[in-house]
Amino acid sequence: MSKHRLESFSDGVFAIVITLLILNVHLDHQRELTLNVLGGLTPDIVAFVLSFIIVGVYWVSHHNMLHMIKMVDRRLLWLNLLLLLAIVFIPFPAGLLGQQLWNPIAVATYGINLMVVNALGTAMWLYAGSHSQLMVSGVSPAMVRFVARLHSTPILVYAVGILLAYWYIPVSMLLFAAVPAFFILPNPFLDRRLSRFDGAPQ
Amino acid sequence: MSKHRLESFSDGVFAIVITLLILNVHLDHQRELTLNVLGGLTPDIVAFVLSFIIVGVYWVSHHNMLHMIKMVDRRLLWLNLLLLLAIVFIPFPAGLLGQQLWNPIAVATYGINLMVVNALGTAMWLYAGSHSQLMVSGVSPAMVRFVARLHSTPILVYAVGILLAYWYIPVSMLLFAAVPAFFILPNPFLDRRLSRFDGAPQ
Amino acid sequence: MSKHRLESFSDGVFAIVITLLILNVHLDHQRELTLNVLGGLTPDIVAFVLSFIIVGVYWVSHHNMLHMIKMVDRRLLWLNLLLLLAIVFIPFPAGLLGQQLWNPIAVATYGINLMVVNALGTAMWLYAGSHSQLMVSGVSPAMVRFVARLHSTPILVYAVGILLAYWYIPVSMLLFAAVPAFFILPNPFLDRRLSRFDGAPQ
Amino acid sequence: MSKHRLESFSDGVFAIVITLLILNVHLDHQRELTLNVLGGLTPDIVAFVLSFIIVGVYWVSHHNMLHMIKMVDRRLLWLNLLLLLAIVFIPFPAGLLGQQLWNPIAVATYGINLMVVNALGTAMWLYAGSHSQLMVSGVSPAMVRFVARLHSTPILVYAVGILLAYWYIPVSMLLFAAVPAFFILPNPFLDRRLSRFDGAPQ
Repeated sequence: MSKHRLESFSDGVFAIVITLLILNVHLDHQRELTLNVLGGLTPDIVAFVLSFIIVGVYWVSHHNMLHMIKMVDRRLLWLNLLLLLAIVFIPFPAGLLGQQLWNPIAVATYGINLMVVNALGTAMWLYAGSHSQLMVSGVSPAMVRFVARLHSTPILVYAVGILLAYWYIPVSMLLFAAVPAFFILPNPFLDRRLSRFDGAPQ
Repeated sequence: MSKHRLESFSDGVFAIVITLLILNVHLDHQRELTLNVLGGLTPDIVAFVLSFIIVGVYWVSHHNMLHMIKMVDRRLLWLNLLLLLAIVFIPFPAGLLGQQLWNPIAVATYGINLMVVNALGTAMWLYAGSHSQLMVSGVSPAMVRFVARLHSTPILVYAVGILLAYWYIPVSMLLFAAVPAFFILPNPFLDRRLSRFDGAPQ
Repeated sequence: MSKHRLESFSDGVFAIVITLLILNVHLDHQRELTLNVLGGLTPDIVAFVLSFIIVGVYWVSHHNMLHMIKMVDRRLLWLNLLLLLAIVFIPFPAGLLGQQLWNPIAVATYGINLMVVNALGTAMWLYAGSHSQLMVSGVSPAMVRFVARLHSTPILVYAVGILLAYWYIPVSMLLFAAVPAFFILPNPFLDRRLSRFDGAPQ
Repeated sequence: MSKHRLESFSDGVFAIVITLLILNVHLDHQRELTLNVLGGLTPDIVAFVLSFIIVGVYWVSHHNMLHMIKMVDRRLLWLNLLLLLAIVFIPFPAGLLGQQLWNPIAVATYGINLMVVNALGTAMWLYAGSHSQLMVSGVSPAMVRFVARLHSTPILVYAVGILLAYWYIPVSMLLFAAVPAFFILPNPFLDRRLSRFDGAPQ
């Protein structure tokens, strides 16, 4: 399996998942559309926007990982497919979240899905990083550790978000949204750390 | 993120969105198909055709923009993803429009979605156009301004269309359809302006 | 618009359409699956298989057309998008056909969609064929005419199929199936004609 | 039809099928989500995960086959499209399986779909393998036979799984899961056999 074909296939899956998310936002055929009815779809739209952005961040991270990987062996191929499995799952809890944004179980299901994605992303990265024949040259062990931390830290944030859902759900949602914000918004901490490396993700 | 990978990913999303639109056109399983029932689907089909063509124009415009951009930085990447978010949203209001073509709120929701797409497209273009290191050489400031106007003018047309929906919806639909017609039909105004530039979109 | 990008985009749309067809085959959630119930899905499965193969033939024909085209201008781009519009529409009448295979209106809707696809394919080909700067060299006028006939003749077959649907639907289905069979099965008539040309589709 | 374009198209179809599988996992809009309700979705999730992994293995096998094929003629093209037809069908029985995991007819429908995929994969491979002008050089007849056995042996396993479904379904599921496990887990038998060949799939 060439890295290029794995990358195209993964990109295809990301593009389909990010687009399928909109199927969760819809109106029952019989209902007359009023401003009230439209307002009642706010949770669906919030869940859609949050999930779109989170999947977008995953896509960029995946790209950045593969940027530092030069070869794919059978194990890495299957770690990547497991990661895609968890990504493809997202539209299901995203739909639950949109339907029942006030329900801690929906929030927890969503958060657990994200935790699994980050755990599998970390595992895939650590596997590649510990097999130097798979990596492009110039990726230092410090870089490997730093990227692993970037992938694994959100697991903690999501876990806290899940626990807080049983207390006050808006805080959970803020925590869930904080993770992509950290990666998207201008971030001097991230930039300073990454600028020290060659072949750095951006 | 290379421009090439951003382009393939965006193309994938455009292809999926444009195809998913057909899922909005369907018949309840229990209903016997008669010419009357089929005729009753006319609004769904109108909304499908209009949306297909509008998304098609967006795809071509996106291509033309990227044709004049040579590099993608982190901000441009995220402006592009925000633009895709608004594109991916289209099947939802397109479905509303098909279900309730006579309902000004459906028309307004649809029009607002299109306005957001054009606003984000303009923002993305202005961001790229004001960072010369991201642009291919030979794109003059006049060209940047002209393309920005092409992207932003439809916002006004859609706004007028939305307002008129509270008076007489067919006029709104004509205005919505006029925008893609302007870009698709032979257009001496557009051709004359673009022919003055190098690397012009076509 | 480069030919290459148009081709990838079109291929993406074909791949999504051909896959979405399966969404028309499904069972109501509440029903217990028995052999009888499964047998009751035969029309859905017949419509799926027929449509999959017909879209497959369209994909191959589209590829063969583009094989003889070397450049895409604005009109050809939009003729191609119109053709894709008609292709993207197919899952809707294919779903109707699966639900009501015994209903001449469903058969007619399906057949008309196919006629439109072939008419637009013929139009796109004739447009390209009459602008020599768009064609690869070595495609003779005789070849252009022959391919135009290959694209347009099925329109007649589908029309006859539609008319016969009001008499006996199995004959219509046989006629609809005969068109892809002509292009897929070993076909000495086709092979002999095409072997006379350079750059021939295959 | 170049091998490259067939490969991209097939990859697109695989990516869409593997992602559409998640649409089978959903909750009725009216139901409040509780841990019980979530637990009631276990069969859907089992069917999703199993099918995702099986389609993943098919994708990797398809890639490995094409790796040893250098040219595509009309028959191979259509054998490949028939194989894709059977792949695209999978979400339907996968949905049945998720809805009625305790129902031998659902298990049998699912298993028969997989048998057809493997039969068509074997047929496609044997066709290519017996036309040396289609193969990359260095693929020995022994290699052709070995890969044919890899593709066809699961047919037997699935057949046994189907029969056992009428006795005790968990055994069927274990057999269905054993096939991908054989291809994914470290497998000295497979590695030893394949290492003897040049151009071996991996």
